[in-house]
Amino acid sequence: MTTIHDLPTPALVVHTRELTANLAAMAAARPAAELRPHVKAFKSTELAREIAARHHHHAFCCATLAEMEGMASSGLGDDLMLANETLDVERLGRLGAARDVRITVAVDSLETIEVARLAGVREVVIDVEVGLPRCGCPPAEAARLAEVATDRGLLVRGVMGYEGQCQDWTDPEKRRAEVERSMALLAEAHAEVGGDVVSAGGTGTHAINSLATEIQAGSYVLMDTHYSRLTDLPFRPALRVLATVISARAGAGGWYVADAGLKAFAMDHGDPSADIGHVFFCSDEHTTVSAEPELDVRVGDRVTFVPAHIDPTVAKHELLHLVEGEEIIDVWPVDLRGW
Amino acid sequence: MTTIHDLPTPALVVHTRELTANLAAMAAARPAAELRPHVKAFKSTELAREIAARHHHHAFCCATLAEMEGMASSGLGDDLMLANETLDVERLGRLGAARDVRITVAVDSLETIEVARLAGVREVVIDVEVGLPRCGCPPAEAARLAEVATDRGLLVRGVMGYEGQCQDWTDPEKRRAEVERSMALLAEAHAEVGGDVVSAGGTGTHAINSLATEIQAGSYVLMDTHYSRLTDLPFRPALRVLATVISARAGAGGWYVADAGLKAFAMDHGDPSADIGHVFFCSDEHTTVSAEPELDVRVGDRVTFVPAHIDPTVAKHELLHLVEGEEIIDVWPVDLRGW
Repeated sequence: MTTIHDLPTPALVVHTRELTANLAAMAAARPAAELRPHVKAFKSTELAREIAARHHHHAFCCATLAEMEGMASSGLGDDLMLANETLDVERLGRLGAARDVRITVAVDSLETIEVARLAGVREVVIDVEVGLPRCGCPPAEAARLAEVATDRGLLVRGVMGYEGQCQDWTDPEKRRAEVERSMALLAEAHAEVGGDVVSAGGTGTHAINSLATEIQAGSYVLMDTHYSRLTDLPFRPALRVLATVISARAGAGGWYVADAGLKAFAMDHGDPSADIGHVFFCSDEHTTVSAEPELDVRVGDRVTFVPAHIDPTVAKHELLHLVEGEEIIDVWPVDLRGW
Repeated sequence: MTTIHDLPTPALVVHTRELTANLAAMAAARPAAELRPHVKAFKSTELAREIAARHHHHAFCCATLAEMEGMASSGLGDDLMLANETLDVERLGRLGAARDVRITVAVDSLETIEVARLAGVREVVIDVEVGLPRCGCPPAEAARLAEVATDRGLLVRGVMGYEGQCQDWTDPEKRRAEVERSMALLAEAHAEVGGDVVSAGGTGTHAINSLATEIQAGSYVLMDTHYSRLTDLPFRPALRVLATVISARAGAGGWYVADAGLKAFAMDHGDPSADIGHVFFCSDEHTTVSAEPELDVRVGDRVTFVPAHIDPTVAKHELLHLVEGEEIIDVWPVDLRGW
């Protein structure tokens, strides 16, 4: 039996019970085609395959060409959406030319429409900005872009609009009001553009976005401390960063040092949380944690951390170790890293 | 001729003029054996090889076993120090058994001394905590640990003590005073421990740490915006993250979106700096930058960012593209990633 004590650290471990429960909870809220899982959150084709097999979510979305390429070459290309803009005609062209793969690309400008056409992509969605200052055209321009895309021979499947500005709002009522405001803009654009796809939403709004025909969510799969502040969500943290205590200063005012630092954790949402004490700070390869007098922690002990932000944490690692208790029951490569 | 316009983005580019100047400036201050370059900052054996060839720094230090293994197997093992504690007897044992490689390991506890002994490592330094609550024994315990290590058949080369708490202090006088305070503690420990190595310092203190026989510095090679706040340092940012403008909302109050986000930048020291405007925010694969009216930026243009923290930024990428102007003159793998 291989256990977490056999792993070199730092390492990612995924608790299968929480993973299974998270997938089931989302499938209950958004069954089958009502969910387009976002692979950017876990970057593993093995995990995507499980999601498709267990809950019949066969359409996925991606943030990068590397994710699109990896999903396509792993036989998970039933309906892949690049929920992002790209100017890379060459790589998009190879995807567009692939057999047995359905590719849809988000476009929000004349330039990105031209890239889709040159790449031989057949289907697009018009990406509409609905409150997050990022990609997406102004709602009033969606109709014109759809017309241009159609003129260029592209099939416009519908619209996409990500209400990212409120995904992490802890007050459910404020979040709901902002979703409604954003989706009113997207509905307006959709009425002009047409098509049967309204792709929107995320983990924080999956249950309250009633406009979207499909929700783009990924963080629900493994969760993190940031999304866990939203107490109305039915998902629980399933991923830990496993580390080893490499130095200890026991006693009052003391600390432990674990061998996982800011190269092993995403830091954009703050420090990770530790199971043995309060995190003082992270440096490249270390996290210093307070020594709590009631815990007997020794040099060589294994400790675990829950990251503050899941997507970029997973992107720093090569493997997901599936565990039941301390036993490792499977290992899935994080094969969709990079760009 | 291959140029930056041929690269898929995001990508790391290294400006050779600034790189060359940084290496020379450090070698002038800390020639040859007075510097032990820290590979954690750039994670590339090709770059380490250049540093050794150009400036005769043949002793390196590493933060991880993966860095030690990569350096050893690339013929850069003249004098490798693991400037960190490890409990991994198996991997350390393979390093200890390697021929033509000199391995020194930091120890700060009975446990880490025992691991070094079991792994067949021959040489250690006693790691002393001198003000940063991280690894290292209290100064008063250094002598006892050195005695135990010697009893176990290990050669104690000396002491190591990292004054990391003040590396980034912008006031040179305060920084100097703190270095003196820290190094007084290390000198005390060294007097008890003996040996000819006093390994300490970093980019921020390389010129003012007069106790260290060798400075452990790495960030000086490529630099970042955080260290650039220290105006007394002679190093300049040599690395950029290259991105493509994938979406644009020109005009007053407008913004551009680049295809490099918080998976491409280390975020622990804050947002990167852009050459086209003020950074509003980073998300996974995007950075939104203000549209400055005087700049004519178009969708498809290349933009560059200087990261806030160099070490963890490099660790997110696979390649360093060496450039002169816009021409790519060499490509070095970031082959020391992971653990």
